[in-house]
Amino acid sequence: MSPFTRKPAESVAAWGETQLIAAIRGWLGAVSPRAPFGIGDDCAVLPPSRGRQLVTVDPVIYGRHFDDSVPPREVGAKLLKRNLSDIAAMGGRPVAAVLAITLDGRTSRRWIELFYRGLAATARRYHVAIVGGDVAEGRNTVAASLTLLGEATGPRVLTRSGARLGDWIYVTGLLGRSRASGHHYRFSPRLEEGAWFARRPEVRAMMDVSDGLAKDLGALTPRGARPSIDTGVLPRRAGATVREALSDGEDYELLLAVNHRADRSRLEQAWRDRFSRTRLTCIGRFAPAGSRGQASFLLADYSGYEHFR
Amino acid sequence: MSPFTRKPAESVAAWGETQLIAAIRGWLGAVSPRAPFGIGDDCAVLPPSRGRQLVTVDPVIYGRHFDDSVPPREVGAKLLKRNLSDIAAMGGRPVAAVLAITLDGRTSRRWIELFYRGLAATARRYHVAIVGGDVAEGRNTVAASLTLLGEATGPRVLTRSGARLGDWIYVTGLLGRSRASGHHYRFSPRLEEGAWFARRPEVRAMMDVSDGLAKDLGALTPRGARPSIDTGVLPRRAGATVREALSDGEDYELLLAVNHRADRSRLEQAWRDRFSRTRLTCIGRFAPAGSRGQASFLLADYSGYEHFR
Repeated sequence: MSPFTRKPAESVAAWGETQLIAAIRGWLGAVSPRAPFGIGDDCAVLPPSRGRQLVTVDPVIYGRHFDDSVPPREVGAKLLKRNLSDIAAMGGRPVAAVLAITLDGRTSRRWIELFYRGLAATARRYHVAIVGGDVAEGRNTVAASLTLLGEATGPRVLTRSGARLGDWIYVTGLLGRSRASGHHYRFSPRLEEGAWFARRPEVRAMMDVSDGLAKDLGALTPRGARPSIDTGVLPRRAGATVREALSDGEDYELLLAVNHRADRSRLEQAWRDRFSRTRLTCIGRFAPAGSRGQASFLLADYSGYEHFR
Repeated sequence: MSPFTRKPAESVAAWGETQLIAAIRGWLGAVSPRAPFGIGDDCAVLPPSRGRQLVTVDPVIYGRHFDDSVPPREVGAKLLKRNLSDIAAMGGRPVAAVLAITLDGRTSRRWIELFYRGLAATARRYHVAIVGGDVAEGRNTVAASLTLLGEATGPRVLTRSGARLGDWIYVTGLLGRSRASGHHYRFSPRLEEGAWFARRPEVRAMMDVSDGLAKDLGALTPRGARPSIDTGVLPRRAGATVREALSDGEDYELLLAVNHRADRSRLEQAWRDRFSRTRLTCIGRFAPAGSRGQASFLLADYSGYEHFR
């Protein structure tokens, strides 16, 4: 479904800003608290945080993160889920979000309604309050940027740094062909899994895979090390080649470093007991930088997604 | 200065995302804390809040909030100051911000550097940490959306609701001709003033004037009342007509309701003692909805700025 309509009467321009914002609040329903705790004042007022806070921001842009083939409800859902995946990657839980949207006046009211209804359904499911927003006009574009606030679920927040030489590299789920398969909007952010890892002392560092494993792994790799990956065990989505699993991106899986002294079988058993339907795969380890492993590969050859290139 | 360059070598496309993000961190300098407290991890980690939190989001879009006549440093400054004005309107103080930017690949590196340097200078001045961001590609556009987190400065947060029939209406500074005069990017957000009002028990409600006084006043007006404004005392910027003062928008001044039982001269004297260089003007009061005052006017005739119209 295209975001744009040729019938002026069905466009957001026929409404104007005030009526559009009133409609948005209706579509959001219960996930949109009343002002000043939500939309409708200069700021939203939130209670003091319970612990350390997490903040992340990610957009969806027409032609980049979605096209006419993605149902508008799924575009709204994806916008929130992309950000939820970042909260999951720290082992946190989401709390509240604000949304800035830029629309061409020709955007169809039906499209934008479904977008917000999809966002609201996802917000309900993951207990996120939509507390603020901004609507602006932009030519030939539908772009929305969501800032998600979260908090730590326990004493520990997992960051990208902390891995050491020799540590094992694990990944959840399957990799590759995310866009071709529709996974890029159908995925479920790994919130419970991320919070579970944050409570496991064996896990030293974590991130989500969004730009492709080969590119993202660089951020987890400690100084003096290089990731040695066994491409033969890479958990690939149906039909995905090794190259696709390494560089497609939009996997929204968790990538983690596990202490090389840890009892791996104990970790893996505990995982299976808790998350029996999701794979957890050891795909390699951090080897010394100068070494040559059997299954090594040059990350740069699979550099993943890079904007402006 | 146009954001776009015709020389590919001087464009952000010649850099790619990784190099652009590294450059942005350099331009932001000390206002960009190291990960995980700033840019560079899946989320930024913030300490627990000290009190009630405030959240707001506002964009700047090329062709809408700035054009080639606005120096790029001032575009970056304006983006943050628009949001600071919303924090000021609640009587809060700013804490941290995240920034999502969408750029055409033809955007000049010089323009974007000056934009971020202007943002950084303003962030330094107002003690705001830039803790996260996202850079995305978009055709024919330069648009940035900033989410600002803040906190209450004391026991009270001032909201738009709380005014009562008979209350006095006050406004800070001057109104009108904001775009014509350059005030729309040269203004200073009223943070100290807003925090001062939040400590004054006479003040019952507050907001900032961004869409034009006539439109914004509606949000402050209690049920059963209408604002009765003495247009003769409206504090107008040099050259501004009454119509411009009522409807131009982008004033970024504070608009407040003062208890009709309060000692106005005491409030005004305290204001002059504290803020001698800024005007505080009583422009009218909330009269009964059915009444006709001498200086009344129809708000709808001066409806201020409305998107998509």
